[in-house]
Amino acid sequence: MADYQKIDTYLQNNLDKSIAELSKLVAQPSVGAQNLGLKECAALVGEMLRARGFKVEIMDTEGAPVVFAERKGRSDKTLLIYNHYDVQPPEPLELWESPPFEPSLRNGKLYGRGVSDDKGHITSRLFAIDSLLDSGGELPCNIKFIIEGEEETSSVHLYDYILKNKDRLKADACMWEFGGVDYRDVPMQYLGLRGICYVELSVETAGTDVHSGLGGSIFPNAAWRLVWALSSLKGQDEKIRIPGFYDGIQPPSARDRELMSALPEVADEYKSMYGVKNFIKGLTGGLDLRIEEVFTPTCTICGLTSGYQGPGSKTVLPARASAKVDFRLVIGQEPADIRKKLRAYLDAQGFSDVQITDLGGDAAARTDPDHPFIQLVARTAQEVYEMPMQLVPMIGGSGPSHPFVHDLGLPVATGGIGHPDTRAHAPNENVRIDLYLKHARHMARIITEFAS
Amino acid sequence: MADYQKIDTYLQNNLDKSIAELSKLVAQPSVGAQNLGLKECAALVGEMLRARGFKVEIMDTEGAPVVFAERKGRSDKTLLIYNHYDVQPPEPLELWESPPFEPSLRNGKLYGRGVSDDKGHITSRLFAIDSLLDSGGELPCNIKFIIEGEEETSSVHLYDYILKNKDRLKADACMWEFGGVDYRDVPMQYLGLRGICYVELSVETAGTDVHSGLGGSIFPNAAWRLVWALSSLKGQDEKIRIPGFYDGIQPPSARDRELMSALPEVADEYKSMYGVKNFIKGLTGGLDLRIEEVFTPTCTICGLTSGYQGPGSKTVLPARASAKVDFRLVIGQEPADIRKKLRAYLDAQGFSDVQITDLGGDAAARTDPDHPFIQLVARTAQEVYEMPMQLVPMIGGSGPSHPFVHDLGLPVATGGIGHPDTRAHAPNENVRIDLYLKHARHMARIITEFAS
Repeated sequence: MADYQKIDTYLQNNLDKSIAELSKLVAQPSVGAQNLGLKECAALVGEMLRARGFKVEIMDTEGAPVVFAERKGRSDKTLLIYNHYDVQPPEPLELWESPPFEPSLRNGKLYGRGVSDDKGHITSRLFAIDSLLDSGGELPCNIKFIIEGEEETSSVHLYDYILKNKDRLKADACMWEFGGVDYRDVPMQYLGLRGICYVELSVETAGTDVHSGLGGSIFPNAAWRLVWALSSLKGQDEKIRIPGFYDGIQPPSARDRELMSALPEVADEYKSMYGVKNFIKGLTGGLDLRIEEVFTPTCTICGLTSGYQGPGSKTVLPARASAKVDFRLVIGQEPADIRKKLRAYLDAQGFSDVQITDLGGDAAARTDPDHPFIQLVARTAQEVYEMPMQLVPMIGGSGPSHPFVHDLGLPVATGGIGHPDTRAHAPNENVRIDLYLKHARHMARIITEFAS
Repeated sequence: MADYQKIDTYLQNNLDKSIAELSKLVAQPSVGAQNLGLKECAALVGEMLRARGFKVEIMDTEGAPVVFAERKGRSDKTLLIYNHYDVQPPEPLELWESPPFEPSLRNGKLYGRGVSDDKGHITSRLFAIDSLLDSGGELPCNIKFIIEGEEETSSVHLYDYILKNKDRLKADACMWEFGGVDYRDVPMQYLGLRGICYVELSVETAGTDVHSGLGGSIFPNAAWRLVWALSSLKGQDEKIRIPGFYDGIQPPSARDRELMSALPEVADEYKSMYGVKNFIKGLTGGLDLRIEEVFTPTCTICGLTSGYQGPGSKTVLPARASAKVDFRLVIGQEPADIRKKLRAYLDAQGFSDVQITDLGGDAAARTDPDHPFIQLVARTAQEVYEMPMQLVPMIGGSGPSHPFVHDLGLPVATGGIGHPDTRAHAPNENVRIDLYLKHARHMARIITEFAS
């Protein structure tokens, strides 16, 4: 058995150094949607892994490079750790209290774009590895890292990479890129992710914008075409109208409902955190709200753009309009199939002029809550967090877990530095230093006990 | 009778000087929607008028200042000339072949924002006045200028200014701010303008944007609310659904149809100029298209904005969404009434959360095609353009002509430097130098014959 006291002491004494390493990684912008700094960030992650004795390969894809790294350990078991080095765009910049790419430590938190999602997870895991190497001289088991650069842009090339590198990625279990505590500071085990199908819908009705006084009565208007096409997809009843959209999906099982019932109420927290007055579909809270949140598919308009958007008025009839739309998918739905049904429906509704651009997708995936690896992760958490880990059968977010679960055949566990006010994807993203340290302690234990 | 040969020679010999004056005026940006350079431009226009012996008053309003100028002439008749010194935003900048505020002379045209709409009209009229002063030492009649700075932003404060200054603005006829030739180079007399009611519709559903994986199934989405509200206003049948919207409007008269019938076909010209493949409402061309274009009211989405609009994907559920919408109005409709009906309809449809911001409006107005002043303008055009002026009972655009026609009681005639490829409100706005000279010649004749 490893000397956890020695490990914990190492982690406590070297925390500042690890936060400095995280700050260095955050200071390297790597905005996938804007194709900013991805290669530079991949190289920096590669350096950090080499410094721990990992054999590193930075593999080009058609998009951002994938960082693959491997180091042998004492046991012949292999843990695959999945992370990503890309981050969400920092906009709107004016809402940040400190610049997004200049990490700033205030009140026990480090602020910056990517401190939590996902660079802090990378460095806290490297920190755990440092403690194991310090304690035992070598790793307890084989560790492989796969760190991609397109997670925030729907991991467009990851599936292909995984299928082509199944042997290289062979492992016995997988630690996912995120995890953390809920608002009570209870560590949570997130066992399933919804899928996603992200598209851009765009319309072009003319070669150039036209004065609205001239064309208003007689010319097609791209913004109107887009509004009508969008409103055909979903009505105010929140039902998605694409034929076959809901085919093959299943309601949550009795075990799912049991686990969901044990979760705390979220209604008030959501209202106060996001300034939302009411939920849709007549939901008010309780189990119904929690079940609806994660076990139903969605059609979300993420962005709209057309014509004049500045201050005041401009009398223009727009030639072009576009919308960013994401569909969150549940088990039983598949992104390519949804895109096909969307195309057929738009055509049938008379919207053949609406172009669909595929911006990536993943199917949903989940791991059995009663799998031994999940039990191990939950058990080791208890020692660090001093309370039982809570099992969550499914969450609302998405990620490329489908190929890990279904193509590599791995149980996938979460664990990490996240907390409810971490503001991933929003201004003032932050990580709590206490949770950063706890995750490193937890990871050191997971790796140790997994090896034995 | 004035010596038109002497006047024409003066205009020919001094054309470069007038184009230089126009260039100076265009080089002073005055973008109403962006509150850029308005006071500076008003001062510059004032200087140009004073240089011609006008008594100038620059009157503050709650918005951009109004330039009022007056010079007595030989006869006791008074011509009121209406112009505006504000311009449309120059965006998108990347489509300009030369910078919008650095006027550039190429192939017989001057390019720049505002060269046609409306600064070229101001300087060509000053140029005509120069020729009259050169020829006769004084003006043939009294001339008053009213030059506002909010025409491109719906002349929000002009109506109020006119009502408060009815005595000051007393006149016998009015020359409108624009006019010109059609694609055959035939001079056109535009006798009516549609009204406009410009609003911004905006929705806020939360205090902050939310990760779409979290909120998609349970949170209200501002972009969806906006799309649904917009689609309730007008369907694919192009019928505006606001109850009472069409109340009180009248079909074109027999005289209107007669004048419209005499106008040339526009379908092919519109298709080639704007890259539009088809018209809406099943229109293909001919009199039906021309009648529909100007005698029906519209609901045009001029702009849409919400959430993430950059490249690639961002999985965000927007807290805010807004649309710029203009309604073109016909005789019998009134902007305040339309806004009231819009509010009532949105409320009735469950969209009380959609805010309406008033961005200005005007009612439609028209002048009798058989009025003596219109006949004078048409007759004097014939000598300059060497062909008959064509009477157009109504056009699709809008302007604040309602108070001139209905409160000041004036006949309003158009005449100007416009041509079909003038690209007002679009990149590469331009004025043809030959038409600039012709308008100055025409104006010198209008003023002369109006005085007698």
